Amino acid sequence: MKALVYNGPHLKSVEERPKPTLEQPSDAIIKITKTTICGTDLHILKGDVATCKPGTILGHEGIGIVDSIGVGVTSFKVGEKVIISCISACARCDNCRKGMYSHCLNGGWILGNTINGTQAEFVRIPYADTSLYHIPEHVDEEALVMLSDILPTGFECGVLNGKVQVGATVAIIGAGPIGLAALLTAQFYSPSKIIMVDLDDNRLKISEKFGATTTINSSRNDATKLIMSLTGGLGVDTAIEAVGIPATFKLCADIVAAGGTIANIGVHGCKVDLHLEKLWSQNITIKTRLVDTISIPMLLKTVLAKRINPKLLITHHFKLSQIIEAYDTFGSASKTKALKVIIEA
Amino acid sequence: MKALVYNGPHLKSVEERPKPTLEQPSDAIIKITKTTICGTDLHILKGDVATCKPGTILGHEGIGIVDSIGVGVTSFKVGEKVIISCISACARCDNCRKGMYSHCLNGGWILGNTINGTQAEFVRIPYADTSLYHIPEHVDEEALVMLSDILPTGFECGVLNGKVQVGATVAIIGAGPIGLAALLTAQFYSPSKIIMVDLDDNRLKISEKFGATTTINSSRNDATKLIMSLTGGLGVDTAIEAVGIPATFKLCADIVAAGGTIANIGVHGCKVDLHLEKLWSQNITIKTRLVDTISIPMLLKTVLAKRINPKLLITHHFKLSQIIEAYDTFGSASKTKALKVIIEA
Amino acid sequence: MKALVYNGPHLKSVEERPKPTLEQPSDAIIKITKTTICGTDLHILKGDVATCKPGTILGHEGIGIVDSIGVGVTSFKVGEKVIISCISACARCDNCRKGMYSHCLNGGWILGNTINGTQAEFVRIPYADTSLYHIPEHVDEEALVMLSDILPTGFECGVLNGKVQVGATVAIIGAGPIGLAALLTAQFYSPSKIIMVDLDDNRLKISEKFGATTTINSSRNDATKLIMSLTGGLGVDTAIEAVGIPATFKLCADIVAAGGTIANIGVHGCKVDLHLEKLWSQNITIKTRLVDTISIPMLLKTVLAKRINPKLLITHHFKLSQIIEAYDTFGSASKTKALKVIIEA
Amino acid sequence: MKALVYNGPHLKSVEERPKPTLEQPSDAIIKITKTTICGTDLHILKGDVATCKPGTILGHEGIGIVDSIGVGVTSFKVGEKVIISCISACARCDNCRKGMYSHCLNGGWILGNTINGTQAEFVRIPYADTSLYHIPEHVDEEALVMLSDILPTGFECGVLNGKVQVGATVAIIGAGPIGLAALLTAQFYSPSKIIMVDLDDNRLKISEKFGATTTINSSRNDATKLIMSLTGGLGVDTAIEAVGIPATFKLCADIVAAGGTIANIGVHGCKVDLHLEKLWSQNITIKTRLVDTISIPMLLKTVLAKRINPKLLITHHFKLSQIIEAYDTFGSASKTKALKVIIEA
Repeated sequence: MKALVYNGPHLKSVEERPKPTLEQPSDAIIKITKTTICGTDLHILKGDVATCKPGTILGHEGIGIVDSIGVGVTSFKVGEKVIISCISACARCDNCRKGMYSHCLNGGWILGNTINGTQAEFVRIPYADTSLYHIPEHVDEEALVMLSDILPTGFECGVLNGKVQVGATVAIIGAGPIGLAALLTAQFYSPSKIIMVDLDDNRLKISEKFGATTTINSSRNDATKLIMSLTGGLGVDTAIEAVGIPATFKLCADIVAAGGTIANIGVHGCKVDLHLEKLWSQNITIKTRLVDTISIPMLLKTVLAKRINPKLLITHHFKLSQIIEAYDTFGSASKTKALKVIIEA
Repeated sequence: MKALVYNGPHLKSVEERPKPTLEQPSDAIIKITKTTICGTDLHILKGDVATCKPGTILGHEGIGIVDSIGVGVTSFKVGEKVIISCISACARCDNCRKGMYSHCLNGGWILGNTINGTQAEFVRIPYADTSLYHIPEHVDEEALVMLSDILPTGFECGVLNGKVQVGATVAIIGAGPIGLAALLTAQFYSPSKIIMVDLDDNRLKISEKFGATTTINSSRNDATKLIMSLTGGLGVDTAIEAVGIPATFKLCADIVAAGGTIANIGVHGCKVDLHLEKLWSQNITIKTRLVDTISIPMLLKTVLAKRINPKLLITHHFKLSQIIEAYDTFGSASKTKALKVIIEA
Repeated sequence: MKALVYNGPHLKSVEERPKPTLEQPSDAIIKITKTTICGTDLHILKGDVATCKPGTILGHEGIGIVDSIGVGVTSFKVGEKVIISCISACARCDNCRKGMYSHCLNGGWILGNTINGTQAEFVRIPYADTSLYHIPEHVDEEALVMLSDILPTGFECGVLNGKVQVGATVAIIGAGPIGLAALLTAQFYSPSKIIMVDLDDNRLKISEKFGATTTINSSRNDATKLIMSLTGGLGVDTAIEAVGIPATFKLCADIVAAGGTIANIGVHGCKVDLHLEKLWSQNITIKTRLVDTISIPMLLKTVLAKRINPKLLITHHFKLSQIIEAYDTFGSASKTKALKVIIEA
Repeated sequence: MKALVYNGPHLKSVEERPKPTLEQPSDAIIKITKTTICGTDLHILKGDVATCKPGTILGHEGIGIVDSIGVGVTSFKVGEKVIISCISACARCDNCRKGMYSHCLNGGWILGNTINGTQAEFVRIPYADTSLYHIPEHVDEEALVMLSDILPTGFECGVLNGKVQVGATVAIIGAGPIGLAALLTAQFYSPSKIIMVDLDDNRLKISEKFGATTTINSSRNDATKLIMSLTGGLGVDTAIEAVGIPATFKLCADIVAAGGTIANIGVHGCKVDLHLEKLWSQNITIKTRLVDTISIPMLLKTVLAKRINPKLLITHHFKLSQIIEAYDTFGSASKTKALKVIIEA
């Protein structure tokens, strides 16, 4: 089968690989129909993710059709359509029992990282019963590729962790795909203000279409000053960090109200300063999270009920044979205006 | 009346001052019977608290008797015994409505800071209806001085913010009065392990008496290594920072389990490093808080029910005329083994 | 001044009464600009509310202008526009401290019940600081009359108590004004299905306009059967009782899913059967509540942010001199299709 | 093997049965070392549990040793010691994902009900990975038999559902084994008062030893009056129903404070009256629950930490061959003073 293989820092290629086979009773083999590329895949390609060894097939998102199942799999049958979670959850360890699948002691984020991933014609999914989700009849399947990772991440790490409340004020720092996923899902809770901050006017324009009530280009404006002024000097109830650098974390800490919450989604490469000499008395909460994807069933219901349209995040389409081109497009987002790209296998 | 007055950095004296008078309809004048000294008073005397101007009477803790009340006060009568909260709460601003009295837009921590405090024969208490608490008959009043600040601080900022759970593992870094207050109140929730870390063997010995299941002298031991080993390599569910310096905050971040919580009580004088390059994916929560004292009524019930004995924290007694000596004793705690000192007015 | 006075069961009249005066330091006198009639007023007129004595001016909703304030009032000034809460909250008793204003030990629901109410030119409001809310500039004031009682009741007693969740299934039994208020505010949380049940086709048609995803006329249909079928045999996550009779409570109990919640808003006149022989093992929650109106500030933010349009509930307008006619219209809702009527003073 | 078999209403016998065998990949066969009898077993024997057919081996509690495992079982090995949950949880259905194992769509309470149970030398446990729990070294194993059902039931259905709070007031109606399990586990949260109500003086005496602060024999006293007086006329924060008849539910409703919670543990055989004409405005919560046993790991930690001593509940010991005698003893508890009986296999 065809697969996109990581060959070490800055090296990737489309290769012919053997179709995966069942290894454990809880495994399923899924024939991929659609997959996508994540910012994390770009991190791997830069060599930033030490756990991912050269030779690994990348990709941890996608939808497909059950091709075969292990003897222990009881929730899925061959031929059924499924969403693949980016997180493999054994459902039996202490962390899974708490709903913290991201820290599953037997799985977690392993797809396209420590085991072969979804940017291929087939993929082996461990703990299939609790790492796959049924796709109902008569639903736009393409939208559901967004449920593998990006929507749950925006929702769980940004919106749930940020305790977005009805009538409250939210600032999202970073209007890339993940910030936009937080923007879309924050609206589930009807906040009164959602302020988007980014350096890219195109993304801010998209933010407005997606429901932002205010947008701020921080390259031309003092975001802290503007946000404090918009909130009567009090700051925001929720600040969502969706970039992953010290400057954006600092902005969150500068604008969070007493009693407010900073939800970190960004993947950070270095430490940040935490000004506890000011914040110790501010009754704030800072939360971090690797997505657990426990919200997939709930998000699926909101898609079916048309409370959210995840397709808004999809800007480009490619065939699996064009995946190198897809990477180029996704990797030059400021030029191509790409958000999420769909790759049909 | 006699009062302990802050006269600028490193300067304090017992002075004769006029008895305070009612200024607002919501004021009450309280005749102090017992007060105490807080670590924060020492901070003020170092010149660290810019809001406290020379000439201010210090002190924000104590119990007393209602001497007079403004026309708007309905919950208290002259002659009644009361606990004074260290936080003055108007109960009508947005923050008070949320129970965040510490950030009361009309009060907050003002006693012995921006207005005259409790280390005197009388004190004026603004918003008396919601800043004082009745003392029931037949109760050991001295114990209740601990309800003005230190027990609510240990409980709200450490235990509640730290989400201490039944059966869980807690580490408290710092076994000073505030760490010990967290230790006493953490036991309300029956955690299975409470590990105390300090540099002072005497305080660790006290910790054991107060209910710690393990004590670690971090001057002689690698606390991180020991705690990780005690928790099967997972780390603690709750890490309570009760010192206020970068090293102790770092220790908390090093020992907190995936999914765990760091509760900061310490008053920090400078920024700390937050290693988000590791923590971004660890599903942790960091919480800060200036005590709200909303737990005073509940803590009072636990004292009356003998579920907690706050007198354990009291080591020394002085008369108001000896308050300079009381400051010396409290300020040399490693030598005098002082925890909290009672000053009788 | 003119006022609508309850003169005993089935007796009411517009009378000339003296303008109220300040009695306590915490009082304010409000010049009413707009008020409305509540289903509870009809209950009083039937003689069902023993606490309301003949001679009482009715009404517990409305907006107005501060006419005078007691010396203890600090949050409001003469001439300011205000929303009147139907609940008078002292903010200093144990129940108010918990946010349970409805059970304020010094107030609670007293307006138009044990003291004179708002269906008059002026009204005295006890505990004005915490029983009134500022009206901002440039807002459609009429909509805010809905914040005195009906919207907080639908939201607090129905939606919050019912734990309405994103993606979940909600049934509201009763499409009168209060059921419709629950319908409007349930949408703050983006449930996937909201099923309205009523006997009146007009109200069901309105429900559809207000956002119901399914409507059921239970006079012509087996509501239980239909709802179980709509939910795959599982039942609804939240069942909101908005009528107040045994049959509608039974319907809620019959359709609630294992793990689900029944939120009772209805004012019941007699006991109901609770089938614990079936429900003991169903992991359900039943909640009751007299509105606390703690959500007024939050609801105000959602109105300002146009996340909700309370004017949808207003169907008729009258002058205070026409209030008898207003009662007739409101009391014959099935004929007049009245929801809420506005009375201008 | 020997087993206790239900042969229809009022009929049971010790019979020789074939040792169970693995049927599904997720099964394990457990050699029972200790089991016990539950009040529910008596219900079955009365013919009250229609799902339990004649011929079924009874029992849903116990500890044992893994005898064999299916190919899908990954968390347990042959020879390991285990606690058996009374609830079989597939961990993959929607209800299990929410932690509501009691309503597992593939399991739930099936042991000794719809499939053969634990009152035998061996038992087949479906979904072994998530229905068994490891027993650590050097622990008193007998105490752990109480973790199969009774302690989790008292804790989850009574204490957690009852939202027992630090400093609060709790009444437990019924001092049988399940009420006593609630009493023991309520103390995890340090309530200030725990009032036990029963008709049996012996059980009330035991309650005192177990930590009750007040006991009331309701055959000789007006429990409602006494409890209202003990709580200053306000009622209790938490009322736990641990009997299962209309009179005890009514008592709970009569004594619950405004804002309080009724937690039902009792297995009811008929409907009860719910006086919504009084309770609609009282801001109360009523909760029901079939035990989920999600608290077993946490309870195990509290046993290991000696925060609770479940052996207090054990009054009698028998061999499996004496199980008929054990049933007689357990069934005549008022005479034999039996709480829980241990049966060694």
